[in-house]
Amino acid sequence: MAKHWSVDPTEALRADGIQIAELDTSATPGFKGKKKAGQSLLAERTQVLSDLQEKLYASGRSGDSRSVLLVLQGMDTAGKGGIVRHVIGSVDPQGVDHAAFGVPTRAEKRHDFLWRIRKRLPEGGQIGVFDRSHYEDVLVARVHELVPESVWRPRYTEINAFERELVDSGITLVKVALFVSLDEQRRRLLERLNRPDKYWKFKPADIDERAYWPDYTEAYQAVVDRTSTKGAPWYVVPADHKWYARLAVTELLIDALEQLQLDWPPADFDIKEQKRRLRDE
Amino acid sequence: MAKHWSVDPTEALRADGIQIAELDTSATPGFKGKKKAGQSLLAERTQVLSDLQEKLYASGRSGDSRSVLLVLQGMDTAGKGGIVRHVIGSVDPQGVDHAAFGVPTRAEKRHDFLWRIRKRLPEGGQIGVFDRSHYEDVLVARVHELVPESVWRPRYTEINAFERELVDSGITLVKVALFVSLDEQRRRLLERLNRPDKYWKFKPADIDERAYWPDYTEAYQAVVDRTSTKGAPWYVVPADHKWYARLAVTELLIDALEQLQLDWPPADFDIKEQKRRLRDE
Repeated sequence: MAKHWSVDPTEALRADGIQIAELDTSATPGFKGKKKAGQSLLAERTQVLSDLQEKLYASGRSGDSRSVLLVLQGMDTAGKGGIVRHVIGSVDPQGVDHAAFGVPTRAEKRHDFLWRIRKRLPEGGQIGVFDRSHYEDVLVARVHELVPESVWRPRYTEINAFERELVDSGITLVKVALFVSLDEQRRRLLERLNRPDKYWKFKPADIDERAYWPDYTEAYQAVVDRTSTKGAPWYVVPADHKWYARLAVTELLIDALEQLQLDWPPADFDIKEQKRRLRDE
Repeated sequence: MAKHWSVDPTEALRADGIQIAELDTSATPGFKGKKKAGQSLLAERTQVLSDLQEKLYASGRSGDSRSVLLVLQGMDTAGKGGIVRHVIGSVDPQGVDHAAFGVPTRAEKRHDFLWRIRKRLPEGGQIGVFDRSHYEDVLVARVHELVPESVWRPRYTEINAFERELVDSGITLVKVALFVSLDEQRRRLLERLNRPDKYWKFKPADIDERAYWPDYTEAYQAVVDRTSTKGAPWYVVPADHKWYARLAVTELLIDALEQLQLDWPPADFDIKEQKRRLRDE
């Protein structure tokens, strides 16, 4: 366990039994330090993450079909983008496959909801990142009744079957839901309205969505209740403190990579012979 | 022009009239400083690049269809991977679309050589990165006669037409060819053979390829002679010094982004009204 953690983040953040409506989004579960300690630890740990990621990439290049997939969910302003920029941004872009899932296109709507997801699954050796995901189809789709209940209700079971298939195929899922409070979201939206370099992140519809907060809370609760499985558990990350959320996700990714027990791929050639060839050219 | 440069890198590295066989791959064209100054400047300039990239991304999110495409070519060990890791790795992964083009698959071979390339063109707001590209089809394909001359010969013209189309559609091409000397390549291959954490980067075929060095030089010469156009010029970057190559590519990307005269997208909503909505909730 990394220093400053009193409980391993994989335990402290596991969704099992969590009541999202009662979550303290300003808490820092399992972490003993404050912001300064967290930020300094983050710098250290992203280096560890980067080293592990290089081993994953090397393994992939050598035929290992395993990969890691970070699934990021969260309301507007919860900090998904910051995780990508500051956590995923610390590793080699060659080994990252980032996919953002917005409102489905017309072509996507003509297919099963998992169709566009399957197309973006990471290849062996990659860290895939889903900024929003198939879970939108039981979140926004449920809250706004974009499809009838008879369609979204069976999706939890379909998602579990789908994810079991992914796990069996060698994809380690790291499912992270970021939560800020309604107040913190207001502050962050106001910041976007106060800074010309942030206007582009704001849409008036973001405020409309705040009226649906209880519905989203309920929909997220159903997600963690019904799709947090042994093979693909959910982690619920309080995200009022950006430094904490970034550190927590870094630790979750490190744990996932460590579980793979990666090592540098051995030479599949005779090293001495190859050195001789270079010398005798 | 950034400090320490006596000639702007876009001029110092422009391929026009360059004889690749006579290139001093240990030179640092246009740059007055040594390694230490170069590395310290790189840290500064990647920050500038990162800021510009965020504006490009913001513009893309606001409907701007323009993008930048870095095309990286170079022999094995020339440092393409290092450019991706250290230059592209300094910007937000959300705005990067990285594609590596290896030996064509069977499906790819059934199509025109540009088919797989077109599928990976960057969307508006993105920096696309091609680690190898359609130029392989006039490099390795020509050197090893993977296709008859009657097929590869017309490709220069086809590439120019293709790239004109890209430029017209709003893609700024930054085409970079990295060159190391045969000796420097030997050193780098030996390093891979001496370090267990680098074995995975080595293939015995990398040594076989060294016998074709003059043929590759000729093929690269044909590339810059025939496909360095006003709209899509080639930059020839001496790459024995990794710090120089990384700094040079950073400067070329900064220049490309500056040409776009990006600014933060303006608000397309009434800021006061939105603030009021948040206050009056």
